[in-house]
Amino acid sequence: MRKSLATVSISGSLTEKLESAARAGFDGVEIFENDLLGCPLTPEEIRDRAADLGLTIDLYQPFRDFEAVSPDRLAANLRRAEKKFRTMERLGADTLLVCSNVSPDAIDDDGLAARQLRLLAERAAAHGIRIAYEALAWGRHVNDYLHAWRIVRMADHPGLGTCLDSFHILSRGSDPGGIEALPGEKIFFLQLADAPPLSMDVLQWSRHHRCFPGQGGFDVAGLVAHVLRTGYDGPLSLEVFNDVFRQADTGRTAACAMRSLIALEESVAQVLGTESPLPRPAEPSGFAFAELATRDRERLGALLGGLGFSRTGRHAAEPVEVWEQGAARILLNGADPGDPGTSLAAIGLESPDPGASAERARSLLAPAPPRRRALREAPMDAVAAPDGTRLLFCRAGDPDHPDRRAGSSRAAPPAGGITGIDHVALSHPWHHFDEAVLFHRAVLGLRPHESFDVADPYGLLHSRAMSNEAGTVRMVLNIARLGDKDLPRQHVALATGDIVAVARRLRALPDVLLPIPDNYYDDLEARYDLGPERHRQLRELGLMYDRDEGGEFLHLYTATVGQVFFEIVERVGDYRGFGLPNAAVRLVAQHAPAPDRSAA
Amino acid sequence: MRKSLATVSISGSLTEKLESAARAGFDGVEIFENDLLGCPLTPEEIRDRAADLGLTIDLYQPFRDFEAVSPDRLAANLRRAEKKFRTMERLGADTLLVCSNVSPDAIDDDGLAARQLRLLAERAAAHGIRIAYEALAWGRHVNDYLHAWRIVRMADHPGLGTCLDSFHILSRGSDPGGIEALPGEKIFFLQLADAPPLSMDVLQWSRHHRCFPGQGGFDVAGLVAHVLRTGYDGPLSLEVFNDVFRQADTGRTAACAMRSLIALEESVAQVLGTESPLPRPAEPSGFAFAELATRDRERLGALLGGLGFSRTGRHAAEPVEVWEQGAARILLNGADPGDPGTSLAAIGLESPDPGASAERARSLLAPAPPRRRALREAPMDAVAAPDGTRLLFCRAGDPDHPDRRAGSSRAAPPAGGITGIDHVALSHPWHHFDEAVLFHRAVLGLRPHESFDVADPYGLLHSRAMSNEAGTVRMVLNIARLGDKDLPRQHVALATGDIVAVARRLRALPDVLLPIPDNYYDDLEARYDLGPERHRQLRELGLMYDRDEGGEFLHLYTATVGQVFFEIVERVGDYRGFGLPNAAVRLVAQHAPAPDRSAA
Repeated sequence: MRKSLATVSISGSLTEKLESAARAGFDGVEIFENDLLGCPLTPEEIRDRAADLGLTIDLYQPFRDFEAVSPDRLAANLRRAEKKFRTMERLGADTLLVCSNVSPDAIDDDGLAARQLRLLAERAAAHGIRIAYEALAWGRHVNDYLHAWRIVRMADHPGLGTCLDSFHILSRGSDPGGIEALPGEKIFFLQLADAPPLSMDVLQWSRHHRCFPGQGGFDVAGLVAHVLRTGYDGPLSLEVFNDVFRQADTGRTAACAMRSLIALEESVAQVLGTESPLPRPAEPSGFAFAELATRDRERLGALLGGLGFSRTGRHAAEPVEVWEQGAARILLNGADPGDPGTSLAAIGLESPDPGASAERARSLLAPAPPRRRALREAPMDAVAAPDGTRLLFCRAGDPDHPDRRAGSSRAAPPAGGITGIDHVALSHPWHHFDEAVLFHRAVLGLRPHESFDVADPYGLLHSRAMSNEAGTVRMVLNIARLGDKDLPRQHVALATGDIVAVARRLRALPDVLLPIPDNYYDDLEARYDLGPERHRQLRELGLMYDRDEGGEFLHLYTATVGQVFFEIVERVGDYRGFGLPNAAVRLVAQHAPAPDRSAA
Repeated sequence: MRKSLATVSISGSLTEKLESAARAGFDGVEIFENDLLGCPLTPEEIRDRAADLGLTIDLYQPFRDFEAVSPDRLAANLRRAEKKFRTMERLGADTLLVCSNVSPDAIDDDGLAARQLRLLAERAAAHGIRIAYEALAWGRHVNDYLHAWRIVRMADHPGLGTCLDSFHILSRGSDPGGIEALPGEKIFFLQLADAPPLSMDVLQWSRHHRCFPGQGGFDVAGLVAHVLRTGYDGPLSLEVFNDVFRQADTGRTAACAMRSLIALEESVAQVLGTESPLPRPAEPSGFAFAELATRDRERLGALLGGLGFSRTGRHAAEPVEVWEQGAARILLNGADPGDPGTSLAAIGLESPDPGASAERARSLLAPAPPRRRALREAPMDAVAAPDGTRLLFCRAGDPDHPDRRAGSSRAAPPAGGITGIDHVALSHPWHHFDEAVLFHRAVLGLRPHESFDVADPYGLLHSRAMSNEAGTVRMVLNIARLGDKDLPRQHVALATGDIVAVARRLRALPDVLLPIPDNYYDDLEARYDLGPERHRQLRELGLMYDRDEGGEFLHLYTATVGQVFFEIVERVGDYRGFGLPNAAVRLVAQHAPAPDRSAA
């Protein structure tokens, strides 16, 4: 299907927006009026610029507060419309979006609205222009898409149709099934936006918190399927008002918008039972490894040794070591450390078909991974995630797999040791969070869990877990909003079946464990009655505790090296979470200097 | 009155919070449980640290979901309470905040709630602890302060009272007048917060958007007056959950909190007709001058000359020039330029009593102005505004006034010239905006207008005007959220009675005016029918146009020098605004490079 982007959805000047939309592969744009007003180019120059870029101008918008008005207001509105028709002719735009009237003066009379819209359509037709009438969710009298359609039908003019907008329909909780009663040729335009579930004024929700399909909570694919069943063959057009996207990089947001539409097309095809435009997913089944880039291989090696890892391989030609324990594999790469000395550089994902996984990722516009100085001869299928981490798809046994590549010689895991990687937590700048949710959902097939805000002593940590059906690939996406103290933190959580044994071993080592304050354990005793023996043990070993309806969770944290730390977790029963109630205490401990007891 | 601060209101570790609260002059604190849990100090050490700082621990909070529960839940809750009593004893805190139950399991039975709270109060009394029961605005069955009070009265235990919280009362639209029916000695605690008017879920509103009294829209002073009439003599305690304050500087937020309480005491005194604790306001009556620090006196001098200003004085010993036109006075100070080359360094405010104005500002914790290299011998009464601009209070004729200080010799304004300073727009980092609103309100007596968001091509401009009753002192507080492109912009708006004459003069000069795109004028013709002659004139002269119910507004902008530009405004009739509908177009024009017509 043709894909279009409203210029309001991305940042920049109008020419920057057009260029980014074209580069991201869009076929057309909606010109948002404010973008035109501030542009130093004439409408003719904008038309030519768009044409040079291969973009059609599919819609001019918005035209407000036109219909259901008094006769003198109508005259003024028609005068206003004639000016806009003239601008649209110069621009080469043939469809005008008319939003349902929000003015307190609007008259509650569908017949009047229909007659006036018919008059507008007649005037527009003289300029070769069509009118697409849309119900705003906060329209004064018309706020439901079926109501707008009834008025369009009553007006009965070939140049007047309706515009459907997924936000206006789904934010009100309307049933989109009713769309199928509309004739497809009377749906002049389809605007798409998703949104997170927020309980707030719908106008503010719409103006500040829309997002691209797949980033929020609406069933946009279901709505589009209803629209396509009517025979609609116009563009799928994204119209997203979002405070963050307004501030983010133009080209990156445009690419994210396109990724959203590609993934949406796949979802729609699933609903309709038609062929998907995307390669079938070869979804990752587990973590093959986590690779840390570090200046400090010695310290990390000591930490991994303390955690019970063995160095099982060392690359012949590169400063890369492989450390293993159970199914957990950590690569230490000294060749290309990031600025903070130690950072998570790559995640290896076990895939049934690495080539297909990477191909799908590239179809979804996953960027190529950053150039690296090392591992040049290992041509694994790799892309870059939105936080910059490389994702490498590999299959055990393949020549590229790290166990072969670096000459790994895996030993049997020690009793009560680490059994594998439980999850990986990535840190994102504030303006790449929604992008990351969509990316990991579309590219890796992970399903997002609920979002949470955790209090940090210097701000808030916004956190959202994502996992596959089997629970074998779990990622936690974090965004820290810490004012000036912004510090990215990434971590690798390692699974064990006997965290008590692990903790015992670690407590014997200096400076390995993150100390948890005694006050936490006093509170834990207040919240849970686990028996004095258990409480004593948790406190002594510095273990944190959580439970849900499925089971229990025990975990501990190591000290941070560079921007990376490790977590050790034991899941008892069917616990599904990540120890969220303990996160605030952990964050305080991570910020804390060594306790200062000078006043005691 | 005693003043207290909940530790959740500011950022940092618990010890940082205690130190900042003490430094800002608070008498006590509420310990928010999460701050304790993460703290490496023992409760005894925290008690001692607070005592050393001269702080009492006035409240421990919150204790949740206690009352109106089944018998086995009650047993678990009492067990939990005993653990907390023990912690409070160690901490030296004698009042526990119990929030009304929000659990879906809570039983709708006031008698049961009362009996269980009485039991809790009996247990607490054995530890010398009192229970303050509070209705959360989103409590399951108890969400109104009078309902909580009825339960407290029914329980009838001397160790059980109520806690009133301005947010929970005013967010629900409850009438605070009912407070006067409560006996003062049964009000165990008073928590204060303001909030901006937001139409959203009250829990989210409370957790993320509370602010200090005077920063939002609630009549907190009126509520406090009701409370004081009951004979309440406990502390005024601020409990503010705010995403921005969580990330801001601890000490600065604590000082802002104290400023809020000092100003609140004055407002309460006005309501009660009692004596104010603050020096009477000597409110500024107009702008004496605006001072620009610049590396580029030549370019600014040329610009001011073009605007019709004359250099009327030059300081003997300092690189300071005075430029005047009508009542507008601009000082160019070459001694101490900021980083961006040219910035607004100071605003001179005409005051009937400069010493009293400055004294009041200092009573409200206005910081001393930044040290400067020049003007050392001019000891004007000065403080620093939250954006760093110096505010100097002066009285015409005084020896410190700039017309004398720099040997100004004012000339008569040219016909059709600038008559004075209309307003000044200041630029704030995102985490000092609420602070700035409160500062200018309390210190200068300016009243805030409505807040607006304006679309910028690279983000959003959040803007709030403030003015005095007479309209002679107008400031616009701006915060630009532009992602990585953050650029502070300040401007001085100059008033004229004949903007057409000013514009004619300026159009003859090269590179002085900000060009306004033709597309703006096409839209203006669509929106307003001012007659072809008028529209032609506006377009030709590059004037922007707005109107409100009171009158018309014509304005233009100069090019930006460093981070400063000038606006020229003509107010026709009683126009009260600032040309807001034109701001988005102006912002695009300010970002735009010279128009690139290469593709045309």
